[in-house]
Amino acid sequence: MAKDGLTEFRLVGTRPDRPDGLDKVTGRARYGADISAPGMLWAAVVRSPHAHARIVKIDTSKAEALDGVKAVITRADFPEGLTGEAWNLQENTMAGDRALYDGHAVAAVAATSAFVAQDAARLIEVEYEVLPHVIDVDDAIKPDAPVIREGAADATVPEGMPPNVVRYMEFGHGDVEAGFGAADLVMEKTYKTEATHQGYIEPHACMGQMGEDGRGEMWVCTQGHWFIRKMCTDVLGLDPAQLRVTPSEIGGGFGGKTTIFMEPLSLALSKKAGGRPVKVVMTRSEVLRATGPTASASMDVKIGMTKDGQITAGRAEFRMQGGAFPGAPVDFALMCGFAAYKMPAVEHIGYDVLANRPRAAAYRAPGSPMGAFAVESLVDEMCRELGLDPLEVRLKNAVHEGDKASYGPKFGSIGLEEVLQATKAHPNLLAELGPNQGRGMASGYWFNHSGDTSVSLAISEDGTAQVSVGTPDIGGSRASIALMTAETLGIDYEDVRVNVVETGALGVNEPTHGSRATFASGKAAVMAAEQAIGEMCRRAAAKWGIDPEAVEWVDGAAQPAGPNAGKFPPMTIAEIAAKMSSTGGPIAGHHESVPEGVGASFGTHVVDVEVDPETGRTTILRYLVVQDAGRAIHPAYVEGQYQGGAVQGIGWALNEAYIYGEDGRLQNTVFLDYRIPVASDLPMIDTVIVEVPNPGHPYGVRGVGETGITPPLPAIANAIHDAVGVRLRSLPMSPPAVLAALKAKE
Amino acid sequence: MAKDGLTEFRLVGTRPDRPDGLDKVTGRARYGADISAPGMLWAAVVRSPHAHARIVKIDTSKAEALDGVKAVITRADFPEGLTGEAWNLQENTMAGDRALYDGHAVAAVAATSAFVAQDAARLIEVEYEVLPHVIDVDDAIKPDAPVIREGAADATVPEGMPPNVVRYMEFGHGDVEAGFGAADLVMEKTYKTEATHQGYIEPHACMGQMGEDGRGEMWVCTQGHWFIRKMCTDVLGLDPAQLRVTPSEIGGGFGGKTTIFMEPLSLALSKKAGGRPVKVVMTRSEVLRATGPTASASMDVKIGMTKDGQITAGRAEFRMQGGAFPGAPVDFALMCGFAAYKMPAVEHIGYDVLANRPRAAAYRAPGSPMGAFAVESLVDEMCRELGLDPLEVRLKNAVHEGDKASYGPKFGSIGLEEVLQATKAHPNLLAELGPNQGRGMASGYWFNHSGDTSVSLAISEDGTAQVSVGTPDIGGSRASIALMTAETLGIDYEDVRVNVVETGALGVNEPTHGSRATFASGKAAVMAAEQAIGEMCRRAAAKWGIDPEAVEWVDGAAQPAGPNAGKFPPMTIAEIAAKMSSTGGPIAGHHESVPEGVGASFGTHVVDVEVDPETGRTTILRYLVVQDAGRAIHPAYVEGQYQGGAVQGIGWALNEAYIYGEDGRLQNTVFLDYRIPVASDLPMIDTVIVEVPNPGHPYGVRGVGETGITPPLPAIANAIHDAVGVRLRSLPMSPPAVLAALKAKE
Repeated sequence: MAKDGLTEFRLVGTRPDRPDGLDKVTGRARYGADISAPGMLWAAVVRSPHAHARIVKIDTSKAEALDGVKAVITRADFPEGLTGEAWNLQENTMAGDRALYDGHAVAAVAATSAFVAQDAARLIEVEYEVLPHVIDVDDAIKPDAPVIREGAADATVPEGMPPNVVRYMEFGHGDVEAGFGAADLVMEKTYKTEATHQGYIEPHACMGQMGEDGRGEMWVCTQGHWFIRKMCTDVLGLDPAQLRVTPSEIGGGFGGKTTIFMEPLSLALSKKAGGRPVKVVMTRSEVLRATGPTASASMDVKIGMTKDGQITAGRAEFRMQGGAFPGAPVDFALMCGFAAYKMPAVEHIGYDVLANRPRAAAYRAPGSPMGAFAVESLVDEMCRELGLDPLEVRLKNAVHEGDKASYGPKFGSIGLEEVLQATKAHPNLLAELGPNQGRGMASGYWFNHSGDTSVSLAISEDGTAQVSVGTPDIGGSRASIALMTAETLGIDYEDVRVNVVETGALGVNEPTHGSRATFASGKAAVMAAEQAIGEMCRRAAAKWGIDPEAVEWVDGAAQPAGPNAGKFPPMTIAEIAAKMSSTGGPIAGHHESVPEGVGASFGTHVVDVEVDPETGRTTILRYLVVQDAGRAIHPAYVEGQYQGGAVQGIGWALNEAYIYGEDGRLQNTVFLDYRIPVASDLPMIDTVIVEVPNPGHPYGVRGVGETGITPPLPAIANAIHDAVGVRLRSLPMSPPAVLAALKAKE
Repeated sequence: MAKDGLTEFRLVGTRPDRPDGLDKVTGRARYGADISAPGMLWAAVVRSPHAHARIVKIDTSKAEALDGVKAVITRADFPEGLTGEAWNLQENTMAGDRALYDGHAVAAVAATSAFVAQDAARLIEVEYEVLPHVIDVDDAIKPDAPVIREGAADATVPEGMPPNVVRYMEFGHGDVEAGFGAADLVMEKTYKTEATHQGYIEPHACMGQMGEDGRGEMWVCTQGHWFIRKMCTDVLGLDPAQLRVTPSEIGGGFGGKTTIFMEPLSLALSKKAGGRPVKVVMTRSEVLRATGPTASASMDVKIGMTKDGQITAGRAEFRMQGGAFPGAPVDFALMCGFAAYKMPAVEHIGYDVLANRPRAAAYRAPGSPMGAFAVESLVDEMCRELGLDPLEVRLKNAVHEGDKASYGPKFGSIGLEEVLQATKAHPNLLAELGPNQGRGMASGYWFNHSGDTSVSLAISEDGTAQVSVGTPDIGGSRASIALMTAETLGIDYEDVRVNVVETGALGVNEPTHGSRATFASGKAAVMAAEQAIGEMCRRAAAKWGIDPEAVEWVDGAAQPAGPNAGKFPPMTIAEIAAKMSSTGGPIAGHHESVPEGVGASFGTHVVDVEVDPETGRTTILRYLVVQDAGRAIHPAYVEGQYQGGAVQGIGWALNEAYIYGEDGRLQNTVFLDYRIPVASDLPMIDTVIVEVPNPGHPYGVRGVGETGITPPLPAIANAIHDAVGVRLRSLPMSPPAVLAALKAKE
């Protein structure tokens, strides 16, 4: 046992070299656009310049006549009659009778070079009839808003709702009105967050190949190649097993690479071009115009609190637009908003609303940052009103194991109390603040997730091991899975190679999302390793002529146990492996399941800012992330996730926004105009890893990727208020917005 | 039950489209040289122009100074101190202090283009001291022959043997001398066969990448990527699990692509070039000079026979050279030679001899064609001497199930009798022969093989299936495995995709060799499918709330059985698959073993030839292959294997040979000079598939790839004798050789 009563492991908890380190610093890692094949064609996509327009006519004849052009496709090249999510995916892949947002694909071309393809794209003539459009969620939910898609609403939407509401939800428990009645202070405010892009460095890229026999292959930058396989074959009407999808190395995803955008185009173009491979690489402008940012939100929150800080009731009504398609994460936003608080009574209402914007994709803890922004800002406002310490109020209301969560179920093992105590004890809270400086805090929550998981493990002829997983490594899962596998097998970290393998080599896997890779693929790898250990013990038992039950696995070797203990010298994994061919053949282990025992995770951030009253610019002086990892398998990667989440939240809070013109066109389509934080904008982010092991995982893992982006939005709003006394309830809190608030205050 | 009392199957035995058909006719299939990567370098190899020479000095400075050159390697870049087979492999990969054959690699260079690499290779200055060399096996075994490699002989070689004998064997049973004494006719003759190349259309090609961290990847044209992985890491001193090897499509192998030649060079060059990928593509000349042909043989055979054709004893003493390294298939040649005959007494003696020629590799039934040439020629000579029908003599002496094989063990189920009867009944035997035309027959044998086999199977979300195998498809194994898997699962052939996956995705696999892929990977796929079926039955049972034992799998669906029969409607694989995520997660099946139950295979060929007495040219008029397939899973592929084996044997018999100059240099290094048969040389090869199911395989498979190359050599020699009365005991029976024999007869 180590400090804090945690089990001490040989490898788990250490910080060895990244397995992908050399690849990434030497350029050996192959990203999406790095894949080529003989005879490959290049694609270009024609995109709508209008936010909403009827497509009257597409004339592709000039493009088809251009030398070097091998295929031109429009929606007419896709199968008809799809319904539900397959229809949504197809409609977003390529516009049908209407273009639904600026950047919506309307045609695509494949040619012998990227230049020819681009020239050909310019020769495709599209006649549009421009329609009225709507961008903002509060405009889009109006009863007289332009109708974006007929028939997109699902059965949850009651009669008489405005036409762009496609999903509606309400849930909660307790007597909310009684709760507000029992409160000393009831406050209700409205908060808005902007859509922000995941901002991954690597644009979407793929190379697809599809024959007339319906057999295809795809190489693609993705978080989940089985999702790509399923979605592409759904959109194109093909058999999943006939498409092999190989993931490239991935230059960031953050949820935005769990779905398809242009991938089916490469397959459809390839099929039309006689099976030649077709590469599609998005520009940054295409990424910003036509791939999924998160949703934008407009949120009403109401909280009742006693004068000593006890929350008596809460109510949240969230409206979110996720572009021209259903799927804005209103549900998750509502579920996470009050999750850090014991709620005697709570009511949630949510609207998923269409707007003429690109389809939202998942973005790190989808929905949770919006919910936190609304709730954690209001809690801060009320603490100030009541003169209470916001940390003590959070401790007083903190949920614990066994408590009913705000969204219904009972919490299992959670570490919110431990996180808040560790925050309270951190020296950053003692740092002195000067003029125009302020401190803000907020908590955040993410469920974490499991999902379909298939892992195989094989022992090599020399006793080293390889693990085949289906979850692309976006944040260190190869390292963490290697550590857990090596720990379980009793061999060195360097003797395990974790390979992210193609769909054709493994059972179905959900993507790397929901902070699930180290939890689910890791747990499955441990179970596969245990299966291989069982087989190795059987081989040793056969050699020794004893019962397999009388063999145990200790320090990477089979050894006789019980009555046979000491009768034979231990047989190491290398010795067993060297003889595998003559003792029964290859040694492997496998595991397929939806691993049970997901552990939820809370975090608390404390940020110190300085606001320049002349310009409205906010500088981050100090930033602390405290979060429950369950168990940190490779602490350096965990810290990296904490820091990365905080930094993305800082960008969302202070600068990032989609700027649309009156014409509904996106105006900031490059990183010079869409301002994500760079290193010079930031201090070193301080981190504290709290470890309350998840009993549902063999090494205590909870998942660490997402919670970290949740608290920054309200923490910074709270800090700005603390610094200069203005309360910003709308994002981004950019210099002009802060300056306007300061002026309004004067 | 179908005709012949065989079980009738829904799919097994049908002839659906090849899964790789469209790929291969449209150019979509990617072969070894089709793989590229960003930053890739091209290699060129400097090869010895001498058959035997001491390497005095290698000056690489001019090459290293050439613009674009990124790495130059010599043997000094490889680890030292290797022993045994690892040492042999390393020594053949790159010469050490001596070049051992014309074409032996002595240095290699990687540069930014193939042209720069070739220029740089020419700038590498190698100083040689030429040593005496030896080419022919009968010269090489002489006591005073030039000593090729000290320390290469293994423990089997008795004291006092000539210096180039590196392996010696003797085995047999019964009283041979008594047997000869009981015979009415004893004949002893000497036969020689030339080394011949496998003649695959696709030269060796690979792209390797290796970092300083010891982690690498390789794409390679190979029959066995785990062998590549093991051999490369042995030669380079690396961990197998750290190298991922992906096989390309393969343009022929025939045994010649089961080992390494230039593959470690790409990895060593890559490592020295900072991890950039390095492509190595052999020219045809390099393939002929420096990759493995089969061994050449010199063979004494003695047989005793009664006047009614009963064989009383046999003796074989074979000498083979397999180049400058051990491994000539003397053992297999001896074991197969008498395999078709019940041998009351037999003696085998074998010598594996070094010579200054490239290292032999496996070639389709390695050794067996040589043994058959000697034994089947002599049997024919004796039948003629005794005035007996050679087919009847073969029937009289034929082995059956339970008989002791000439090489020791008891035969299991075999179909030699059935093959001979089918031959006897074939109309080709009634075709009339004209002047200078003759008919010859011979039998042949191959053990067939199992070996380490790992297969995984996964059910897709729609109930289609994929099978991951580690045996590259060189002769239709994707089709045969898909048929057997679909048959077992009860789904359509088109709904199964068989993928040959990389080493990083599966347990260890032996290569596609020994006619094992359809037998071993096929059997493992069936067992993996049965595992998946078991899981699907459990899910159905859980849904129905009944005992899993009470569920059976019928026609692609789970259905309640026994007391529950008819209680619930069947649940199809598609229905079970659609719900997999909510019923326990992904559905898969796996199997790892050395599958038991290998079934040996006999074949008999009958050939009609016409010999032109003016030129000595032999024309094949008619050619019949009769062979026991066990069960033909996809009969069109089986026929293709029979025809391909016969054609390669025809080339070996009539034309192919390595022609060395006095200087020990190979003179015929392109296909214009090294004459393999082309379509216009051949009639359509007639085939008869005999089916004596192998009880060791769920669908009766024996393996069909190799036996077919065994009988042509003696069958054609026997036919030439029948046509023009000359007996050729040395290959090739090329026009000059036949003409010389005709002249000598006059």
